[in-house]
Amino acid sequence: MRDFTADHRWLSINTATVRRQRGQDWPLLDILDACAARGIRAVSPWRDQVHAAGLAATARAIRAHGLELSGYCRGGMFTHADAAGRDAARDDNRRALDEACELGAACLVLVVGGLPGALAGHPAHKDLAGARAQVAEGIAALLADARERGMPLAIEPLHPMYAADRACVNTLEQALDLCDTLDAARSGALGVAVDLYHVWWDPKLPAMIERAGRLRLLALHVCDWRVPTRDLLEDRGMMGDGVIDIRAVRACVEAQGYAGYSEVEIFSSRDWWLRDGGEVLDTCIERHRRCV
Amino acid sequence: MRDFTADHRWLSINTATVRRQRGQDWPLLDILDACAARGIRAVSPWRDQVHAAGLAATARAIRAHGLELSGYCRGGMFTHADAAGRDAARDDNRRALDEACELGAACLVLVVGGLPGALAGHPAHKDLAGARAQVAEGIAALLADARERGMPLAIEPLHPMYAADRACVNTLEQALDLCDTLDAARSGALGVAVDLYHVWWDPKLPAMIERAGRLRLLALHVCDWRVPTRDLLEDRGMMGDGVIDIRAVRACVEAQGYAGYSEVEIFSSRDWWLRDGGEVLDTCIERHRRCV
Repeated sequence: MRDFTADHRWLSINTATVRRQRGQDWPLLDILDACAARGIRAVSPWRDQVHAAGLAATARAIRAHGLELSGYCRGGMFTHADAAGRDAARDDNRRALDEACELGAACLVLVVGGLPGALAGHPAHKDLAGARAQVAEGIAALLADARERGMPLAIEPLHPMYAADRACVNTLEQALDLCDTLDAARSGALGVAVDLYHVWWDPKLPAMIERAGRLRLLALHVCDWRVPTRDLLEDRGMMGDGVIDIRAVRACVEAQGYAGYSEVEIFSSRDWWLRDGGEVLDTCIERHRRCV
Repeated sequence: MRDFTADHRWLSINTATVRRQRGQDWPLLDILDACAARGIRAVSPWRDQVHAAGLAATARAIRAHGLELSGYCRGGMFTHADAAGRDAARDDNRRALDEACELGAACLVLVVGGLPGALAGHPAHKDLAGARAQVAEGIAALLADARERGMPLAIEPLHPMYAADRACVNTLEQALDLCDTLDAARSGALGVAVDLYHVWWDPKLPAMIERAGRLRLLALHVCDWRVPTRDLLEDRGMMGDGVIDIRAVRACVEAQGYAGYSEVEIFSSRDWWLRDGGEVLDTCIERHRRCV
């Protein structure tokens, strides 16, 4: 297992962690500058932040700073009540792939979608199994585009509390079943993003990390589970402030040969988004060394 | 599958659903009166409500009304940082068994506990696997007492969002693994309580209900998953107000031969606890017919 205590060479910052500090959007190019100034070598930007900054300008800044992308957030959202919605999603996912290529991302992270319309508060139906079938079809189609471009797809299982509205893939086992179905040859084109916030509770986590193996482990996201958790979406904890045994999970992942970044992704409207962005980045560095 | 549309003979009310209406505790004996007056044939009371009303008085009221108990809430909380805590829990669980016998409950429902101290905001450690091992030991010990008394134990897997602080048994599969380990003979002394709020999201739910079979399916709890869910604990929805395909799950359960009550358990500080208790019971009856 790698020693993270002496430096932060394997720290990546998911830019949602510092997207809006003290009520002000922190522009992506400024975030990239702030990361580079601290010797952070990798980021994972969100598409809306890239669009706001401009794709070409973002790509230039990434290259100028010598930054790597541990992933690109995000594609997916495959579930729709009609074919027009699904077609639009496929087009949008292709654009996400192109952007990921332009930015040199390690993978495109997929948040697959829940019940159609649920995120907007108007679920079209209650057929979760049907939504899951749509997800399988959507990934199958996108996988062809991803192979053409040489951009791996990382299915991110989300915590079961998001099954209705954000993602109906909710365990690592379920994500790996999809991988086995859609990429039986383990080509490397399809794998998983292991976000500890979503999977830490799973009694099968160690077994499923082993099942995933090096070829399917495309990303590792870290934060912490606060006790109590005061909000379903925006109360993630900084590493060390919760109950996840982060180092134990990283040991499992690295035992499979994972040697990529540890990406910090924290949504925190009650705490970290209320602070100065530089303070948050400094804290990520310190906690990455001490708690990851 | 039973027809619930014409009457509510298979409706049970978990008394937490109406425990405190408009800021006032609704005394258990009054709740029992209100249920009986509406032709509700079964309840599942919480221990603190029974203790407040008195065990003997509760038992008398139950018998006078001809009520059945679909379960007794609750035993469990097996995880503690020290042996003294575990011993105290075992004593308390034995008393819960005795109370369940006195009240003629169908089963004692077990909420197994999370990380020691986490519910009080001070988790003693991050060893979730260790907590799970304590749960297995705790159930094994209690099972001997339960067998003596002829009172079945129903392990209730709780939603993964409660893994840290309330219960580290979080899927039906995990609960059934415990059953297989501790009661390989399928004696009927140990089984599961299937609460849709906790398990509705699980892609393996139909398969695990089938695996459980009639002998392990000891209770069925219903409510709904609201979109959005505004609070992790107290924002459960009334049946029909959310996205759970309740009837589909009941079909699975009844296909295994389950012929017991459908128990309504709703924690709702934002809606149902703000209403008149009689209105809530009337709504439970109407929704039981229309949505369960």
